[in-house]
Amino acid sequence: MFQIVRSSPKPLGDQLVDEVGRLIDSGRLTEASRLPSVRDLARRLGVSVYTVTTAFERLQARGLIESRPGSGHYVARRLLSEASPKVELGFPPSTDPALRFARSTLDPQSIAVPAGAGLLPPQWLEDVISPPALSRFWRNGGVGISAPAQGDPALRDLLVERLRRAAIPAASRGVLITFGASHAFDLIARRLLSPGDTVLVDDPGYFVLLTQLKAHRLNLVPVPKVADGSDLGVLEDMARLHRPRMFFTQTLLHNPTGITASASNCHGILSLAERYDFLIAEDHVYTDFGPPHLVSLAQIDELRRVIYVGSFTKVLSPAIRLGFLAASDELVPSLVDQKILSVLSGAALVEFVVREVLASGKYRRHLDRLRNRLAKARAISTGLLQAAGLEVTNPSEGGLFLWAALPAGLDADELAIEAQRAGILLAPGSMFSLTTRGSGRLRFNAAHASDPRLLEFLAERCQVAA
Amino acid sequence: MFQIVRSSPKPLGDQLVDEVGRLIDSGRLTEASRLPSVRDLARRLGVSVYTVTTAFERLQARGLIESRPGSGHYVARRLLSEASPKVELGFPPSTDPALRFARSTLDPQSIAVPAGAGLLPPQWLEDVISPPALSRFWRNGGVGISAPAQGDPALRDLLVERLRRAAIPAASRGVLITFGASHAFDLIARRLLSPGDTVLVDDPGYFVLLTQLKAHRLNLVPVPKVADGSDLGVLEDMARLHRPRMFFTQTLLHNPTGITASASNCHGILSLAERYDFLIAEDHVYTDFGPPHLVSLAQIDELRRVIYVGSFTKVLSPAIRLGFLAASDELVPSLVDQKILSVLSGAALVEFVVREVLASGKYRRHLDRLRNRLAKARAISTGLLQAAGLEVTNPSEGGLFLWAALPAGLDADELAIEAQRAGILLAPGSMFSLTTRGSGRLRFNAAHASDPRLLEFLAERCQVAA
Repeated sequence: MFQIVRSSPKPLGDQLVDEVGRLIDSGRLTEASRLPSVRDLARRLGVSVYTVTTAFERLQARGLIESRPGSGHYVARRLLSEASPKVELGFPPSTDPALRFARSTLDPQSIAVPAGAGLLPPQWLEDVISPPALSRFWRNGGVGISAPAQGDPALRDLLVERLRRAAIPAASRGVLITFGASHAFDLIARRLLSPGDTVLVDDPGYFVLLTQLKAHRLNLVPVPKVADGSDLGVLEDMARLHRPRMFFTQTLLHNPTGITASASNCHGILSLAERYDFLIAEDHVYTDFGPPHLVSLAQIDELRRVIYVGSFTKVLSPAIRLGFLAASDELVPSLVDQKILSVLSGAALVEFVVREVLASGKYRRHLDRLRNRLAKARAISTGLLQAAGLEVTNPSEGGLFLWAALPAGLDADELAIEAQRAGILLAPGSMFSLTTRGSGRLRFNAAHASDPRLLEFLAERCQVAA
Repeated sequence: MFQIVRSSPKPLGDQLVDEVGRLIDSGRLTEASRLPSVRDLARRLGVSVYTVTTAFERLQARGLIESRPGSGHYVARRLLSEASPKVELGFPPSTDPALRFARSTLDPQSIAVPAGAGLLPPQWLEDVISPPALSRFWRNGGVGISAPAQGDPALRDLLVERLRRAAIPAASRGVLITFGASHAFDLIARRLLSPGDTVLVDDPGYFVLLTQLKAHRLNLVPVPKVADGSDLGVLEDMARLHRPRMFFTQTLLHNPTGITASASNCHGILSLAERYDFLIAEDHVYTDFGPPHLVSLAQIDELRRVIYVGSFTKVLSPAIRLGFLAASDELVPSLVDQKILSVLSGAALVEFVVREVLASGKYRRHLDRLRNRLAKARAISTGLLQAAGLEVTNPSEGGLFLWAALPAGLDADELAIEAQRAGILLAPGSMFSLTTRGSGRLRFNAAHASDPRLLEFLAERCQVAA
């Protein structure tokens, strides 16, 4: 009883819901019989407590089982004629590869080995957010609080303080809280750009951003990443040729290559932005994974033509989706208006969670632990991936990602499709590039890349190719 | 010491931050001196504990004061040469009246009497969301959970159950979780409509929606609200003339008029939608304020051409910003893609909060209490507004809003500007209309319209006019 197939592409939670439904329908689980406890079942199936809890809640919502406080879960008594409701899954993934990949990474039940995803293991995030602080929020009347459109002023003050420590002269009135970095990029593109405008992008670069910008019908011009940052020769040629409105770039711990631009490269980018008069949207989503006080465009430019985009989704918790942007006085008011037109306002609860973590000093301690853990994971994963037959091209960089090349003859896209069937999520390089710059490559999450199932899968394919 | 001016348009929290800053700068509060306790100061100034807590946190973030656990707040010791950081406020409101109004209603500190706002008093919302449930979320590994792009499946199941109880045959795969109803409308407009398309809107209607649709460069055609719903004659003429793509309408407890369409009127609207082949986006934001099981377009149409847009922001808590839409299998997948392109995904924490409230049965009990309270508040506020000299045109309808006419000769827009100076937020009818249908009218929040400061202000002006 209660069998699930780990290697199936079907999410484990969905399998469990279906399995219990079948057991009830077939009469093997009879009315009012008691189900195993959540923890028991999770251990027995080798899945998380969360997966079982959620499956049980879905079964409850469907009226198939019921919870008796203090006693456990039981098969519900049913009206005679009532058929078992059909189990419905979400829609099949979109046909766009980037959107399909985004959906997979977001669904905790859809993958067994998130080797290509961008999230940290949940254990790495524990103990940062304090439940007592949340209770305090409700006790102090938080339930009635709406977040101001621009975001909680106390949170904005704390962000300003952090930015100033990195020598970025932000002001509270120049900070806008968003539902994550993608939301910030969406607001920027909607408000400051028009369909048909030309923008420069990193190549390779973050796939969701590339898809967002394409959906805005912008004309995307790729700028190659090189060892010390952006290829300044190409950047200048493209700026002269296309007169872009904006450059979307990640100078620190770049996704997917891990490259951190040198101060000199930053200076070069900024000089071109000044000469050819384009704005820069600088993605700082992974900045806090690296050593403090790296030189960035925002720091040199002092937020004159650079828009700083940050996020706590990766480093604090994906359950909160809080990001922000910091920019000049001229740009922010219209972006606040655009936020109202997009979502009206943020969630005061979420803004409070982040505020509490920042104000309590826990965030700094969390980052110290995180960087240590990540450095160790990078070293281990790098060794294991190389032993499996891949070449890791950025072992010495910091951050979350390893950028690895497959042996000649192996196609990364085909490999990713094959891996998905085995419950392993791979991020093929093609997804990150408008050119062929990503082909034959995979992006790995250093925290997830030492999983034996992944390594075995890779070693087998690499040996055949060799 | 610690003086604030209630009638000032400047938010009370900002006043307090400035006042403490001034007292420290002028030396009247000396280094290391103890500040009054939060509760003390809140009582003394007649402001909420939240306002003082937030002001203190902002002062702390600026390094002006410090908190000593168990002892209270003290003026911080400062380095000799360090000047007091300049207190920065958010940007002045946008020039668009609807956006300006939206900003005011969202900022809990900006107004003393939110008579025109759309939110419930915080006390009405207490005890619905349970802090222990939140702690459970973190204990069970919630910190590492990302919400699937379409939204938590268990929450979607619960919403489906609620909709089915209202005889609306939704399916889990046809439900999409959003950051509030405005976010749902934004996704609908972005994905299903193109600039230049013609859409029909209620006149009067919800001002944020009107502004959103205008910003999408849609061609808006007003359809008057009449006693039993929408004016079917005008609706037919406009449908024939303009061949609209969609009708954005609120059939139940309409904002601002309170009108609930009759079943016959719903049938008429739907017949025209079928004949002239347009979709309907039906706003159900206030549905749960009314009696259960009112007939709606979504119910008659069974979600074939009607998109149901709901929200828990109003009825549960503005601190969470959770909404959703339910629609046909054909429409939802592309709306999920659009959500990924807009915000990537929702916040699992927030989705869990709502799931817990729905699953525990607390929501139903909360609604019962809420409806009783609101009915009483409507009766009282109606009497008081009429005594002050206004005519309330929808006293017998349910829901949150009273729609009132001023005596001839009084201009609602001018009155709103004057009121704002006295810390009273009024919602002038013009904001809700593309025509003159709102002029000489104000929308009141029944829960806030019995405030003596409001009534005194109104009575004075109405007497002068009479």
